[in-house]
Amino acid sequence: MAAKSSYPFRVEPQEVDFSLRITLSALGVNVLNIAGIDAHAKGFGVEVLNRDNYSWVLSRIAFEFDYRPKEYVQYEIATWISDYGRMLSTRNFTLTDQSGTTFGRVVSQWCMIDLTRRAAVDLRAVAEEHNEAIVAEPAPAEKPRKVPAIDAEPVLTHRVAYSDIDFNRHVNTMRYIEMMLDVLPIERFEQDRPMRLDINFLKESRYGETLSVSFEERESETLVEIRNDAGTAICRGAFEWR
Amino acid sequence: MAAKSSYPFRVEPQEVDFSLRITLSALGVNVLNIAGIDAHAKGFGVEVLNRDNYSWVLSRIAFEFDYRPKEYVQYEIATWISDYGRMLSTRNFTLTDQSGTTFGRVVSQWCMIDLTRRAAVDLRAVAEEHNEAIVAEPAPAEKPRKVPAIDAEPVLTHRVAYSDIDFNRHVNTMRYIEMMLDVLPIERFEQDRPMRLDINFLKESRYGETLSVSFEERESETLVEIRNDAGTAICRGAFEWR
Repeated sequence: MAAKSSYPFRVEPQEVDFSLRITLSALGVNVLNIAGIDAHAKGFGVEVLNRDNYSWVLSRIAFEFDYRPKEYVQYEIATWISDYGRMLSTRNFTLTDQSGTTFGRVVSQWCMIDLTRRAAVDLRAVAEEHNEAIVAEPAPAEKPRKVPAIDAEPVLTHRVAYSDIDFNRHVNTMRYIEMMLDVLPIERFEQDRPMRLDINFLKESRYGETLSVSFEERESETLVEIRNDAGTAICRGAFEWR
Repeated sequence: MAAKSSYPFRVEPQEVDFSLRITLSALGVNVLNIAGIDAHAKGFGVEVLNRDNYSWVLSRIAFEFDYRPKEYVQYEIATWISDYGRMLSTRNFTLTDQSGTTFGRVVSQWCMIDLTRRAAVDLRAVAEEHNEAIVAEPAPAEKPRKVPAIDAEPVLTHRVAYSDIDFNRHVNTMRYIEMMLDVLPIERFEQDRPMRLDINFLKESRYGETLSVSFEERESETLVEIRNDAGTAICRGAFEWR
C-alpha cells in the first residue's frame, strides 16, 4: 500500500492576477504538473507508458477552492490515486496552507490511451506499478460531474497558436481554463468566493483550428463551452459559486 | 560591492513546446521572476518602492539563447546589476547548464516610475540599496537595441482578457512574448537555432483593448510589432537567427 506524496509550493509573482491572488489556471497547472511528476516518480509516468505507445489522457477534473492564496504564500500539494475502474483512474489532490488548513481539493479522472490504435486501454490489465500506488483514502470532494451542453452564442474566438499547444501539438489544459476564465465578467475575480469548477474534456483541438467560447449564467452556476470550427464541443466547464 | 545571485531551475513539463524544449516565453518568465525576487531580497523590490508610490518598469530587454534545454534539465540563472544612468538601470542574467556551459545571456533595462506623477524618477537620487547592489561585471551581451517600426498588415488580433493582465491590469510581458512567437512560422521551433530577441516596450496596454500583431521577415531577422486599437505601437521585437 502506497502513501500520499506532498510537494511544496509558493505563489510566484507571475501566477497572480490583479487581486494579487493566484489564478485558477496557475493552480491548475501546478496540480497537473504534480500529477506528472508523481506518476513519473512511481514508475508509470508518460515517458514509461510511451515505450508501449500508451499515454495518460485527462478526461474530467473538478477543482474546489475555499480561497486563492496571495503572492509569496507557501502551500503544499498532496496527491494520491484512490481507485480505478476499467477505464478511469482517479487521482486526488489536497492543497494545504501553512496553518494546516486545506483550502483546495481536486479530483481528476484519467484514461490510458493506446496511441497506435487511438483507443482506451483496460486499466485492469496494465501497469502493475499503478495498482501498487493506490492509497486507501477516498477522494476529498465529489467526483467530477458531467457538464451539460449550452446553446449560447460565442463571445470569444481564438485561433490555436504555437503558445497554446503541448508536446502533442494539442491545446494544453491551462489554455482551456484560461479561455473559460476570460469569458466571465472580470468582477468575479475581485471577490474571492469559494467555488467549484468541473471540466469535461471531450475532444482534442489542434494547431490552426479556431475555437469559440460561449457561456450561460444560471442561478449559482456559470456554464462554459468551447467549440471547434465544426461547432463540435471540445471542452465544457461548470463554475459553481458558493 | 555586491555579488551575483544564482537561482536553481528545472525545465518543467508545462514549460516545453512540441519539440520538448523550453519555450522562449517560459525562459522569459523565469528571468523576470528572478529579477523581482532578487530586487526584493536586496531591499529595492516593487513592494518597497510602492511605499513611495514608485515602481520598476521594464523598458527594453535582449535575450540570447544558444539552445533551449529539454524537459527536466536543470540549469541556473545568475543575475546582477552592472550599471545605471539617470533613467535606466541595467540588470543582467546568465543561464548556465549543469556542465557549466552558459547557454543564455539576458540584458534588461528598467526605469523607476513615480506612479503619482506617471513620470520617470532620476535613479541617481534614490534607492541607496540599489547603488550598493552594483556588481563590477559588464553586461554579458550587447545591450538591447532599438527595434525599427514596420509597415505590415496584422496577421493576428487579440482582445486583452483577464488571463493576459498582471497586478496592474496591464498586459504582462510573457503574453507579449507569446504573441510575438505566435505569428512566426511554426517550423521555426522545430529546429533549435541560436538566436537573439530584442524587445522594446513602448506603451502599456489594458484590459479590453484589441491588440494586433504584424511581422516582417528580413534577411536573418524577423521584426514583429504589436499595436493597440488606435494603431499605436505598444511593443516591438526583433528576432535575429544565428
